[in-house]
Amino acid sequence: MDKLTIVTTGGTIDKIYFDDKSSFQIGAPQIGQILRALGVAFEFDVVALMRKDSLHLDAADRALIRQTVSEQPARHILVTHGTDTMVETARELQGIAGKVIVLTGSLNPALFQGSDAVFNVGTAVGAVQSLPDGVYIAMNGRIWDPARVRKNVDANRFERAT
Amino acid sequence: MDKLTIVTTGGTIDKIYFDDKSSFQIGAPQIGQILRALGVAFEFDVVALMRKDSLHLDAADRALIRQTVSEQPARHILVTHGTDTMVETARELQGIAGKVIVLTGSLNPALFQGSDAVFNVGTAVGAVQSLPDGVYIAMNGRIWDPARVRKNVDANRFERAT
Amino acid sequence: MDKLTIVTTGGTIDKIYFDDKSSFQIGAPQIGQILRALGVAFEFDVVALMRKDSLHLDAADRALIRQTVSEQPARHILVTHGTDTMVETARELQGIAGKVIVLTGSLNPALFQGSDAVFNVGTAVGAVQSLPDGVYIAMNGRIWDPARVRKNVDANRFERAT
Amino acid sequence: MDKLTIVTTGGTIDKIYFDDKSSFQIGAPQIGQILRALGVAFEFDVVALMRKDSLHLDAADRALIRQTVSEQPARHILVTHGTDTMVETARELQGIAGKVIVLTGSLNPALFQGSDAVFNVGTAVGAVQSLPDGVYIAMNGRIWDPARVRKNVDANRFERAT
Repeated sequence: MDKLTIVTTGGTIDKIYFDDKSSFQIGAPQIGQILRALGVAFEFDVVALMRKDSLHLDAADRALIRQTVSEQPARHILVTHGTDTMVETARELQGIAGKVIVLTGSLNPALFQGSDAVFNVGTAVGAVQSLPDGVYIAMNGRIWDPARVRKNVDANRFERAT
Repeated sequence: MDKLTIVTTGGTIDKIYFDDKSSFQIGAPQIGQILRALGVAFEFDVVALMRKDSLHLDAADRALIRQTVSEQPARHILVTHGTDTMVETARELQGIAGKVIVLTGSLNPALFQGSDAVFNVGTAVGAVQSLPDGVYIAMNGRIWDPARVRKNVDANRFERAT
Repeated sequence: MDKLTIVTTGGTIDKIYFDDKSSFQIGAPQIGQILRALGVAFEFDVVALMRKDSLHLDAADRALIRQTVSEQPARHILVTHGTDTMVETARELQGIAGKVIVLTGSLNPALFQGSDAVFNVGTAVGAVQSLPDGVYIAMNGRIWDPARVRKNVDANRFERAT
Repeated sequence: MDKLTIVTTGGTIDKIYFDDKSSFQIGAPQIGQILRALGVAFEFDVVALMRKDSLHLDAADRALIRQTVSEQPARHILVTHGTDTMVETARELQGIAGKVIVLTGSLNPALFQGSDAVFNVGTAVGAVQSLPDGVYIAMNGRIWDPARVRKNVDANRFERAT
């Protein structure tokens, strides 16, 4: 892996909390700071594409994500994304030639203690440099084929789709 | 201080995040777990009175908080509370004889990395056993007289009211 | 409290870990960063006096700590200190007129998850502005009279000395 | 990946701090708790083999690690290990047929804020299920061939060996 390009689209991983509004909002991408603080031994750049809850992504957003990923010169691409429609976006990204594309995100904001964000980013980073070309989802410690995974909203976890 | 009684009313300190609803809600009181994990050298009990954002507290809620505090046998009382109307509730609690009452809370949920919750609880605990009878607010590292403090919503901090 | 002066002497609170040496050392004082990150509503300055494990403090070190505290213009003084001989230093500091002096530290390094450092600093800050002139120890959530407290090394906590 | 077997050998990842001894020691393996807390969607078991600083591992220890790994029924094996001699042990593990073996550990104890432990475990978990049979090291966000990596002790990081 010569270089990793990270395309960020928003989602829970980037949620921050504002006390004066008693609400959360999607802030700047966390992933660049996470990787820099950890001192990773690869080059990366961050394309901060959008800051959306994935429930609010529409067809035009997904077309833009696909176009953006396609145009990156790097072969290894990591996409951070909200979990609710991560599977749908992953399916939209299939068929881009010559790229290993891994989508990840988190069920808890990266800024929460005990968040799954750092672990999930680690899983995605380990997978992206180990897999053949294709599109994958890295959540709950598994590398999933987008055609055979779903988010179980009640259990708040990803599982094999039957 | 023979024993500390903690009355919890909700607020940001107890906010947790639900990914499947993409929202924050007020969960179970954090303060008991915090104090137990720290191994404090005093006895305490937690009266989990309500789980409300302090913007939603009304006169009946404040009357209930006052009554509950008044009826506790302990002399030392700590009240956890949302920050937006903490000052108002503190003023309502004045005039209860024979008690040191300290209100605290946090500007960031206790479960957030870098939250002010643990520090604020520490400040309140240090103050409650050191002060004469009365009502006080412990926020931003200061012990405030409720008659001379306000929350500056824009700056998201407590400051002296002029 | 117009201003808080913090004198740091080392101890576990400031311990950091070096993997290449497989050992810990006492690093730069943590307390200034902690208070700045929390956005406390009081002015403070940090006098970084020494970086010692408190088992290695001798009579000359304690004389220097006493002299340094005495010479500070501020009335409110917080001293961070290793826990093993915190009581001994506190007793050496008695009799300095016109000052509220609170010693604190931590049983776990401030950089450890779940460390008692932030809570202890909070307790000390709440106490220093609430107490009359004198010398106090803030550990395990209690404000102790140095004449009647000891560290129980086996239980790794402070307790009333009988 | 039907099941992941984790063999723990000690190292910085499992270091804990004892205030009463003012020292770090290697405690119980952290990795099981980390994976359980994260709710990973795969089965795993933990073989707590030894608790050693990797500088203290000798030929007999490495033979035992090799034998233990060989005898596990699972195909996917993760080994946690101190960083100083991780490369040496990885080379000793080569040639075990029918297994994907990934070694990881951390430069900072898992219990430290900002530790690389959770990220490294994530990287190892992402890699172990994505790679063909063989032995690999997951450190600093990279999947390394043990024949072409070294720990740079001064820079405290893993890098390509020339």
